[in-house]
Amino acid sequence: MEKRYNESLKQTCINLFKSRGVELSDITEIVFDLQKKYIPDLTMDVCADAVDRVMAKREVHYAILTGVELDMLAEQNKLSEPLQTLISNDSPLYGIDEILVLSICNVYGSIGLTNFGYVDKVKPGIIGRLDKLGKESSACHTFMDDLIGAIAAAAASSVAHNSAL
Amino acid sequence: MEKRYNESLKQTCINLFKSRGVELSDITEIVFDLQKKYIPDLTMDVCADAVDRVMAKREVHYAILTGVELDMLAEQNKLSEPLQTLISNDSPLYGIDEILVLSICNVYGSIGLTNFGYVDKVKPGIIGRLDKLGKESSACHTFMDDLIGAIAAAAASSVAHNSAL
Amino acid sequence: MEKRYNESLKQTCINLFKSRGVELSDITEIVFDLQKKYIPDLTMDVCADAVDRVMAKREVHYAILTGVELDMLAEQNKLSEPLQTLISNDSPLYGIDEILVLSICNVYGSIGLTNFGYVDKVKPGIIGRLDKLGKESSACHTFMDDLIGAIAAAAASSVAHNSAL
Amino acid sequence: MEKRYNESLKQTCINLFKSRGVELSDITEIVFDLQKKYIPDLTMDVCADAVDRVMAKREVHYAILTGVELDMLAEQNKLSEPLQTLISNDSPLYGIDEILVLSICNVYGSIGLTNFGYVDKVKPGIIGRLDKLGKESSACHTFMDDLIGAIAAAAASSVAHNSAL
Repeated sequence: MEKRYNESLKQTCINLFKSRGVELSDITEIVFDLQKKYIPDLTMDVCADAVDRVMAKREVHYAILTGVELDMLAEQNKLSEPLQTLISNDSPLYGIDEILVLSICNVYGSIGLTNFGYVDKVKPGIIGRLDKLGKESSACHTFMDDLIGAIAAAAASSVAHNSAL
Repeated sequence: MEKRYNESLKQTCINLFKSRGVELSDITEIVFDLQKKYIPDLTMDVCADAVDRVMAKREVHYAILTGVELDMLAEQNKLSEPLQTLISNDSPLYGIDEILVLSICNVYGSIGLTNFGYVDKVKPGIIGRLDKLGKESSACHTFMDDLIGAIAAAAASSVAHNSAL
Repeated sequence: MEKRYNESLKQTCINLFKSRGVELSDITEIVFDLQKKYIPDLTMDVCADAVDRVMAKREVHYAILTGVELDMLAEQNKLSEPLQTLISNDSPLYGIDEILVLSICNVYGSIGLTNFGYVDKVKPGIIGRLDKLGKESSACHTFMDDLIGAIAAAAASSVAHNSAL
Repeated sequence: MEKRYNESLKQTCINLFKSRGVELSDITEIVFDLQKKYIPDLTMDVCADAVDRVMAKREVHYAILTGVELDMLAEQNKLSEPLQTLISNDSPLYGIDEILVLSICNVYGSIGLTNFGYVDKVKPGIIGRLDKLGKESSACHTFMDDLIGAIAAAAASSVAHNSAL
């Protein structure tokens, strides 16, 4: 029953991502880029499996549901001030977006934190595209880019752990 | 200028607390209860000062603004499902409320975490009253009780550090 | 191979605990006490299984190996000052013992943090006995009591998650 | 008295760094590199002040004393196995070094985490030099590079907060 409930929450999260322009394959690409220099024969399939494992965790679902909701409310101008401005401007000192995803980073151990910090700074692939979109349009991805970065970071940790067999 | 900006954000947070039924003196009482067994001559004034110091931190303002907003949106039934149900029912596995306040717990060092965990479990004073209210009425304090617990825990850590001079 | 390596590390940790006076059944008792009020038909077997799952995690092994080593070096007076005094006196502001076990608390989600804080404060069962021993004898359990508290807290979270099916 | 005690602990930590080949100016350089792209008129003095503020925190002293002690014990082959091998080989999955410095990263808010992850991955300046030294000689800097990265990251956060006045 738990399994089934989680499956349904997982699908809700995947659909939410799609509706906001993010495919799991976008996240898989980041994982591959993070780990290929350490694992020469790494395949995209291995990375996709890792993303899938992270997306099955309840902690991850709750962070996604909360973060994307705040992004959408900010787009619709439905938050109270000064929160509305802090989130819609992606204020660099706001920091709650990074805090929210801490629990995702840690699902496969503390090395996820390092990967998250790197990705959050370098903004590879879909993260850079969303960041640009957020700055140039009325779209708000303040939480989304941290969610993606944290999922990619956790999946990269999982790949690293498994390759260390 | 920074100081003035923070002063204004601090006042916004204090007003928000008042409008939700929480006075800083309620938090001070929890700090006093947490520390009196370790510091025999502890006064309420020392505890009130510590709460005041915690309430001056930008990290704390941002967590308060975000958490209370989510509580209020849940009360107004304005969140998407399943987030609406998770927050309005204070689902014990949701966990995002505890994550959100982690940054508050840590403002005076890692011993804040221990105090937070204790307070979150024992629910002293205002925390217990809000918890009861949340369960018996249409009020939602899912984030509020963790915010109060974390502020009290951080203030207690500050008192402990200062008394160790 | 990974499995076998982890099995062996797990056994190393269990032996290390035994040599320091801690049985897994001591930890199981704390888990049972933490969760029985929420789950009326909870059994000791369910709690023992949860402790076993936590003890199988690599993150947990590394924290145990590091923390117990520091306790033993402190007992043998082999640390440099002022670290020797900080650890052998279990200085309340040291805080590194709480930081070290954060990764254990989180293996089954953020609700582990709350349980850890409570246990660290209330010191039930073996934790209280070790704490007393540390104060009255030359034994040093500065890290051990936090390790036990964190393992119990994580196992309690696992029990809570599973009972929420 | 507290101030004086902290001053003395701070000096102990600076001396420990020197004895292990690390000057505060090495850390200041990393802070400057991290922040110069965001603050065009940033000076080295501003960065040095920020490093000095981080080095005044008790949390930071305790993390330094503990981490450097473990590095030195590993160099002297004085740790029990398998911990000796894990630390002296800087095993990528060990992760306790990253956990230990979490409390440092957070002293100026959660944005410190992002900077830490980036620095830990890119290994600028002294961090890269120590990493190379650790791999090519009998020196062990498993904890040292994370300590430096975390101090630099926290100082960079402090610079960012102050420049946002």
